[in-house]
This record gives sequence, C-alpha cells and structure tokens, in this order.
Amino acid sequence: MSFVDNIRRVIPYTPGEQPQKKVIKLNTNECPYPPSPSVKKALDGMDTDVLRLYPEVACDTLNDALCSYYGVPRECVFSGVGSDDVLSMCFLAFFAGKDPVLFPDITYSFYDVWAEVYRIPYETVPLDEAFGIRPQDYRKPNGGVVIANPNAPTGAALGLDAIEDIVSHNKDSVVIIDEAYIDFGGETALPLIKKYDNVVVVRTMSKSRALAGMRIGYCFGPAQLIKYLNDVKYSVNSYTMNTPALVAGAAAIGDDEYFRDITSRIIKTRTAFGQRLRELGFTFVESSANFIFAAPPAPFEASFIFEELKKRDIYVRHFKKPERIAGHLRITIGTDEEMETLYETLSDILE
Amino acid sequence: MSFVDNIRRVIPYTPGEQPQKKVIKLNTNECPYPPSPSVKKALDGMDTDVLRLYPEVACDTLNDALCSYYGVPRECVFSGVGSDDVLSMCFLAFFAGKDPVLFPDITYSFYDVWAEVYRIPYETVPLDEAFGIRPQDYRKPNGGVVIANPNAPTGAALGLDAIEDIVSHNKDSVVIIDEAYIDFGGETALPLIKKYDNVVVVRTMSKSRALAGMRIGYCFGPAQLIKYLNDVKYSVNSYTMNTPALVAGAAAIGDDEYFRDITSRIIKTRTAFGQRLRELGFTFVESSANFIFAAPPAPFEASFIFEELKKRDIYVRHFKKPERIAGHLRITIGTDEEMETLYETLSDILE
Repeated sequence: MSFVDNIRRVIPYTPGEQPQKKVIKLNTNECPYPPSPSVKKALDGMDTDVLRLYPEVACDTLNDALCSYYGVPRECVFSGVGSDDVLSMCFLAFFAGKDPVLFPDITYSFYDVWAEVYRIPYETVPLDEAFGIRPQDYRKPNGGVVIANPNAPTGAALGLDAIEDIVSHNKDSVVIIDEAYIDFGGETALPLIKKYDNVVVVRTMSKSRALAGMRIGYCFGPAQLIKYLNDVKYSVNSYTMNTPALVAGAAAIGDDEYFRDITSRIIKTRTAFGQRLRELGFTFVESSANFIFAAPPAPFEASFIFEELKKRDIYVRHFKKPERIAGHLRITIGTDEEMETLYETLSDILE
Repeated sequence: MSFVDNIRRVIPYTPGEQPQKKVIKLNTNECPYPPSPSVKKALDGMDTDVLRLYPEVACDTLNDALCSYYGVPRECVFSGVGSDDVLSMCFLAFFAGKDPVLFPDITYSFYDVWAEVYRIPYETVPLDEAFGIRPQDYRKPNGGVVIANPNAPTGAALGLDAIEDIVSHNKDSVVIIDEAYIDFGGETALPLIKKYDNVVVVRTMSKSRALAGMRIGYCFGPAQLIKYLNDVKYSVNSYTMNTPALVAGAAAIGDDEYFRDITSRIIKTRTAFGQRLRELGFTFVESSANFIFAAPPAPFEASFIFEELKKRDIYVRHFKKPERIAGHLRITIGTDEEMETLYETLSDILE
C-alpha cells in the first residue's frame, strides 16, 4: 500500500503544439484575426482595483449579454472556462448513470478522456464511410449522447433534422450538442432547447470570437438542466471565470458586425483554399468549420506531409489515432496570405 | 427511467454574499487594498491581439515567476483557477482510493463538497475544545488527509512541527496543506516538499495578493505528485488559466515590497481590532489569518449581530452549521477605517 495506489491514473488529452518560435500556426483552430476592438477597449477601461474582489458568482456581465444576443432566458445559460470546462461539467453533471454514454468513434478526442477521468461508461459509434453521423445509430439504450456539430476533426455538419432525430429518440438521456464550430457554417440546435427538456447546446468564444486566450465557453439548455449543471459547478469551483473574461466576453458578443466580418472572411478563405487543395489532389469531406480535414494524394502519407510542413515552419495537426484518420491532416483556415504560403509549400512538397 | 436518474445530485458549497450595493464588505476574506500597481501596469501593457491564441498550456509566465520567488524547481509547481480549482484537482487526482479521506469537522466547508461530488469517502475529525487540530488524531488508516493551516474559519494556526507530525505519520497517503491564509501569520509547510514525497502545499492569490477577481491559485509538491496532478488536470481542461491571469499573477509575485506592505498592514489592523473586540466582550482564538472568528458576549447571539450589521450595510459571515460554530462570526480584516466603523457599530448594537 502506498499513496500511489489512491491516485487516479489517466491518459490526458494531448493539445496541439504551441510553438514558441514564429511559425504559420494552423494546428489548433485559432482565429487568424485579433478579437474585436471592443474587447481591447473594454479591457483597457477595466478598473484593475476591483480585482481585489471575487468576480461575479453568476457571471452576470457575460450571461446577460449572451441571453440578450441569443434571445434565451437568463435561467437557460451557463458559462465556463472555455467550452472544455462547460463540457467537462456537463459530463460530470449529466452522465452519472450506469448505461454507456454514446458518441462517434471519430470526434473531439476529449470526450473519452472526460469519460475516463470521471469513470463514466461510454461506447463509441462508428461514423459511416464518408465520415458521416447516422442518427439511427443512436437509437439504443444509453446514459447520454454527445454530438459535435460540425464534427471534429472532420468538419462535417449534420442538418437540424438529423440532430432533432437524435434528441427526440433519446428523451431519457441528456443529449449534448457541441457547437464549437457552428459559426462557420452549421445549422444550430439552439431552437431545440425550447422544444425538448433533454438537450444542451455548447459554444465557445475560442474560434469565431477570436478569444482562445480568454477561455470563454457557454451553453444553453432547459432551466432544469442548467440548474443541475450549476449545482455541480458550484460543487467544484464557486468562481471559475475571472473578471477580465466576463468583461471581454460581453464586449465580444456586443460587436456583431466584427464577428460577422471575420467569420465570413474565414468561410471565404476556406472555400478558396479548399479549391486549390483539391487541385493538388487532396480529398476531403465538405467542411462547415474553420479547418479542412484532408487526405493527401497517393503515394504521399499524411505524416510525411505533416513533418515536411513542420520543417518549413508551418504547423498543421496530424492525429496518429484512430487509424481511420491517420491518413488525414487537419488544417486550420488562416489568413489568405497564410493559406497562399501553405499552398505553395504543399505544391513544392508534392512535386 | 428518465435522464434525471443519471444526474449527479449534489449540495453545492455556498459562497459568501456578493452584495451589489456599496457596503462594508467583511464577509469573503478579500483584501481591502487593491492589487499591486505592477498588476495594473502589466495588464495595461498586454497586447490584446494575442488573445486570439490559446494561453500557455503549462502556465509558464506564472509558474516560472512562482518557482523563482519561492525557490522551488519548475517540475514542483502547479497553477489553477483559484486555490479552489487546485484543491478540486488534488481531490480528484489523489483521493481515488477506498479508505476515507480525513479532515477536521470544522474547516473550509468546500472539502466535503468536493468529496461528495467526486464520490470520495471521507471522515471528519473533531477539533479540540479550543478549535485546535490534534496531530495524533490523524494516525488511523485513511485515503488522504487535508489540513487548512491556518484553519478556516477559525484562523488558528498549527506549528510546522505539528504539520510535519501529520505528514510523517501518513506516508501512505497524500497530505494536502491548504495555506490560503499563510501569509497572515502561519508557518509554511513548503520546506516539507523536499523531505517527504506525500505532501502538497496549496496557496492562493485571492487574499494576500489582492487578486480574488483574477482567480489564481497554485500548489507545490514533489515532482511525482505534480505530474499526476497535471495528468488529471489535462484530462479535465487543457487550458485553465487565461492569458491575463498568467500576466497579472506574475506581476503580483514580482512586487514583493507591496505584498509585504499590505500583509503587514492587515496583521497590524487585526491586532488592533482584536484588542477592541475583546474590550467589547467578544471571545476568539488567536487568528493567524486575515479574519477573526469571534463569539459575541452573552446574551447576544451571533445570528442577531449578523443581521443587525447587515441592516447597517456591514457584511460579515455567519455559518449556521455545524452547530459548534453557529455562535461565531467570521469577520474579515478590512482597512483601519472600516474596522473603526465596525467597532462603533458593534458598540451601538451591544448597548
């Protein structure tokens, strides 16, 4: 017997590399544009003396802004330290049953990590050949369902009908729709929170609001689920979001024009770059996210391209596991200039 | 069967009230002085454009500053979103065994909440008559030990010998020393992390560094324990501390003169106010924290004084449970002016 026997052994999630040197960084789906100027203004105007006091326990500054923007009642919102914190709390709060929680075999690779750390039984459901989610596969006994839409790392989106099919066939489970990438093309499940009592829609400001460095995530759901979620959150940490995060988040939500501008620029760049990527012989399913998940033309291996790009200071993401996706690269959409450099570099490598 | 059956039911920790109106706020042990001017300078100078990128995954800016200030090797530090986040992760990481975790019956009331939410067996150990912790009470089989030193909400400190006694008699358990209030008078257990492989020392910037609003906590421990702690942390949220928190925390640690000035002022105010409180007939054990835990003179009840103060816009903390402490008030040490107003108000109420 030793204290080591009492330690929770886990294999943690591996985040994308954060190189210190100056590189073209297309490996963690960050936004290539800075946050809205309103964020700078709000942070510059913040009285730092108030930092001696605890932040708002119910995140009012941010949650009020979110509710007003999305037209959701105040008791239907919850915020946290990035959508990872929100999702982690959702797993802890909603998945305390004995039946396995279902999610796709290829999806955000944090889901199984949360299940492992919280000792939640789970079962993965294979995507179809074209990396698609089949709603009918989620019609079996379960302790919960998690669907990323658009899915990661594929970028493929499910229509609202298909999402509703999953929600409506699982009324005895909480269904989490992780919409981290929804602002780049998918159809949101937000309207479903009024219609069903078992659905939670999770969002982040890390991608479309260019605030990865602030760690702001949130979710919407029926008041009853949000209440249970808050109970668990207040059992883990009373104050998770610091004052600058609340202020910056509210400012970002307040600048809708800037948000529309940067997301539409990213979508435009994605379309143009996707076209050129196809010309180079890459194949990929259509992306509704701020990245493209593409396989290089034979005989080139994804791992080879990944290493060659890295040598040239261009970072993309390569997942060695599961094997089904080891032949793909996940390429974040950067600025037009960055994608032009990437295109030229890929052309050189493939020559 | 309904999704509600799968929900984790918990009774959350109740934080102190955060009144919106202007009051004398002596109920949540915040610092009455603003953070160091270096914090303002660092935040004002921060490039907000970098917020589009994820923060440092290993919190280098902050952790390097902490290690250099405390003379601790880099692999022996861990930071989080307030000491609540650090403690929560410690509970999750270190207390996955079957034997009960031990902590005092009267202590920081979040310990049993974390135990409940993570389904950790625990057993509380009664304080002695004078609210003291008896090290010999912690010599029985257990799955871990948690000691707040100085203890909350009593303010009573244990000497390093007594702490070492607990650590050395529990070599098969991880012993957590929660030093949230250590900068106001206690003797730190930090030297023990070099001598024992089973001890972790937890700190916060919410009190002595006047940064409650930034949510910064940290801990020191042997490299092996910090490694396990990081594995669990990276299984919950890759990036917990946002960029402003890292920058502000490093700046606060860098201004030792200011830190010494405000903590010594608070200690001086505590001594003077304690004297006057005794003159009013209050009784309390000597405090080594930034609060005094005092019982009013008979026939006055603590709950009555609490309500009377509140009517006069002075907020202190009253815990209705456990019964043993229901006769006490926890009074945060504010500025000399605030304590003067409190003294006069108490005199009026007791007349």
